[in-house]
Amino acid sequence: MPSQFDPPSGTRDFLAADVERREHAFAVIKSVFASYGFEPLQTPAFERLDVLLGKYGEEGDKLIFKILRRGEHEATGEADLALRYDMTVPLARVAAAYGSQLPTPYKRYAMGSVWRADRPGKDRYREFAQCDLDTLGSTSPLADAEVLAAHHDAVAALGLTDFTILVNSRRVLAGLLAAFSIPPEIGAGVLTSLDKLDKITPAEVADELSARGLAAGQARDLVGTLTAPDAVDQVRVALTKTDDGSAGLDEVDTVLSHLSGQIPASRIAFTPRLVRGLSYYTGPIWEVAAAGVAGSLGGGGRYDHLIEQLGGPDVPATGSSIGVERLLALLPGPDDAARARLDLAVTALRPDLAAQSFAFAGAGRKAGLRSSVYLGSSGKLRTQLKWANDTGARWCVIYGEQEQQAGVATVRDMGTGEQVQVAADDLGGYLARLAGSER
Amino acid sequence: MPSQFDPPSGTRDFLAADVERREHAFAVIKSVFASYGFEPLQTPAFERLDVLLGKYGEEGDKLIFKILRRGEHEATGEADLALRYDMTVPLARVAAAYGSQLPTPYKRYAMGSVWRADRPGKDRYREFAQCDLDTLGSTSPLADAEVLAAHHDAVAALGLTDFTILVNSRRVLAGLLAAFSIPPEIGAGVLTSLDKLDKITPAEVADELSARGLAAGQARDLVGTLTAPDAVDQVRVALTKTDDGSAGLDEVDTVLSHLSGQIPASRIAFTPRLVRGLSYYTGPIWEVAAAGVAGSLGGGGRYDHLIEQLGGPDVPATGSSIGVERLLALLPGPDDAARARLDLAVTALRPDLAAQSFAFAGAGRKAGLRSSVYLGSSGKLRTQLKWANDTGARWCVIYGEQEQQAGVATVRDMGTGEQVQVAADDLGGYLARLAGSER
Repeated sequence: MPSQFDPPSGTRDFLAADVERREHAFAVIKSVFASYGFEPLQTPAFERLDVLLGKYGEEGDKLIFKILRRGEHEATGEADLALRYDMTVPLARVAAAYGSQLPTPYKRYAMGSVWRADRPGKDRYREFAQCDLDTLGSTSPLADAEVLAAHHDAVAALGLTDFTILVNSRRVLAGLLAAFSIPPEIGAGVLTSLDKLDKITPAEVADELSARGLAAGQARDLVGTLTAPDAVDQVRVALTKTDDGSAGLDEVDTVLSHLSGQIPASRIAFTPRLVRGLSYYTGPIWEVAAAGVAGSLGGGGRYDHLIEQLGGPDVPATGSSIGVERLLALLPGPDDAARARLDLAVTALRPDLAAQSFAFAGAGRKAGLRSSVYLGSSGKLRTQLKWANDTGARWCVIYGEQEQQAGVATVRDMGTGEQVQVAADDLGGYLARLAGSER
Repeated sequence: MPSQFDPPSGTRDFLAADVERREHAFAVIKSVFASYGFEPLQTPAFERLDVLLGKYGEEGDKLIFKILRRGEHEATGEADLALRYDMTVPLARVAAAYGSQLPTPYKRYAMGSVWRADRPGKDRYREFAQCDLDTLGSTSPLADAEVLAAHHDAVAALGLTDFTILVNSRRVLAGLLAAFSIPPEIGAGVLTSLDKLDKITPAEVADELSARGLAAGQARDLVGTLTAPDAVDQVRVALTKTDDGSAGLDEVDTVLSHLSGQIPASRIAFTPRLVRGLSYYTGPIWEVAAAGVAGSLGGGGRYDHLIEQLGGPDVPATGSSIGVERLLALLPGPDDAARARLDLAVTALRPDLAAQSFAFAGAGRKAGLRSSVYLGSSGKLRTQLKWANDTGARWCVIYGEQEQQAGVATVRDMGTGEQVQVAADDLGGYLARLAGSER
């Protein structure tokens, strides 16, 4: 039951274990992107409303979080700013704003939250992380291959093994429509229906195609070709008959040949029925699919005119978006029980001993150990040892009256319960040796 | 002149060098916090409007960015959500929401953007990073000392040396007012005036105090005591006369004694005239000042009832906020010229050689080198070498027709111009040795 203390609908609080898990994954992905020479870009959480409006279609516009004007203008009820909806429109703005300051080509990644006022649901959030990499300013198929290879390597570096990259091309789709003599005016609709081949049965797709105006035989042929065991071979034959088809095949084969040796052959496949948000792609397209996962783990393609349409300069572009929230959901969950907050816990048994205890914790930190002194109100050793245990600390330094008089500190191994006494002056060195032996 | 492509007023785009500089600083600070056993917390960028409204005073409320309701409610012009204004109100909400799931004490840090609709100016932004660490659930002075020590260590770890931590206590201030027989009803106003001693002259402050109702002699005495060369000694004597004063002195001395040996003595000083947002602090307060910097590098104190006032449980609390934007402004700026985007640049001289070039770049990445193939349209070696040079690459792999026929790759040292030929099959090993020798 939602409480008044829950975060807003569709958003999440991340406590320590979740933050650490997410930040680890983001760091892994960033390091892969950097190894390809992609550089980071960070833009503000909000943009001027007019920069965003009209860029995501009518449905998209409705999902934009708008920010009310301020001060005397607040009463108008009008908005002038809006939360970032994706990373691509800000990229277009940056390309326009900084043009010549940016390297050519401009290879950048962007990682951060975006906000969409979607109806919240299981694994659907109103605030979620996006993670995009794009290359502006290159028409080379090497740029497509590079983005795809970096996407692959990021997913693999996170520990996933059972996934496949489906590759197609916008021009393969155009060639396919031509090869089956499908009138251009219903082409987009036909592709929308074909896009459902992984969701509904071939017969249902064929019915949809008939409803869109294809002859029943034509619809059956098209669906039959795309779902045949040797679909790729059949499509290859069909495509060679048209210029678009041949060119599309070339695009796909060039990207695949660049990636051979870089990506295991079992993880990448020409997939003629892959449609993927056809509207703005202009060349190769791809999508990452994982066994047993509904929906994709991200994807992308070449989109040579989109940056201009979004308000940027007219530059060729290719990019990929890592489905990072879905990926995070596939990775092993945080293991709270195994999570240690501290390496070294230090008792604080009496106010007059507290300064020395605090100094011992400082010595622990100097030795590279996450260290903290007891901050509670109990003066009982038993209570403080329970606290030390709760923090997951590997060792506990006990410092009471006896230790003070003897000029020592007691170091307890929290795993074995073994205790040794160490001269107080030598504790720093002793802890450094302990920390070293654990590595 | 602002252009239509600039980010919204008061916000910034961070290109690669800036992102790297900022993220490095954030990582350094996080690592210090973690070494003390503070754990991360991330809350959403926005909260429900009613969670934020009324928590920052009338002026604060005006600076909140409000988010318009959506769908059919958009036309009402009403807001239901608002961008995070600080990290403390979300902490209070989290403490209420997750109570027993959180460790006791709950030591957390939060690092991220907050948004305030302030008038933008030099070094004043509408989107800026905040970086807070707080301990909930401990009344121990060790908790205050720990937060302060972590704040100190974070500033020092960033490379700053010339800074001072000013320490005072809410109760010292109360004792001071009592010692000078200042009527309680004008106490807050008097402190507000005293807070200006680092901005206006002592005489001007004394005038303000007279205007607030102090006798001229009383005002002169108070200001004189606080600005005397031996102000601390004079104040210590005055404070021992009242219970509040003595208790406040004890608080300050306890924190200072815990920190002796942890923080160089030259960097920390009891400063009786430090007032610091008196309204909600209940115990020790502190502020970090740097030589030649107007304003503070952050600060904090004990605020035992604020979490409850903000809607959370009634827990004692102490915390510090690192002035991370000011700190960043003090650190050396990004050096774009010295910034290498790549370690290894690889030519792509002919389409039929591209796949092999792409594989060489992959071998570079396996060797731990940031590597990329040329993505431009020129087939000229000279142009590609210029690109390699522009990326800052240490080495360039040249692979043309000659190399292909000889089964080799040419590795050029971009610093010296020296070139060696390496068997294509051995390039991976060769690059790994190069990378190793550079470390």
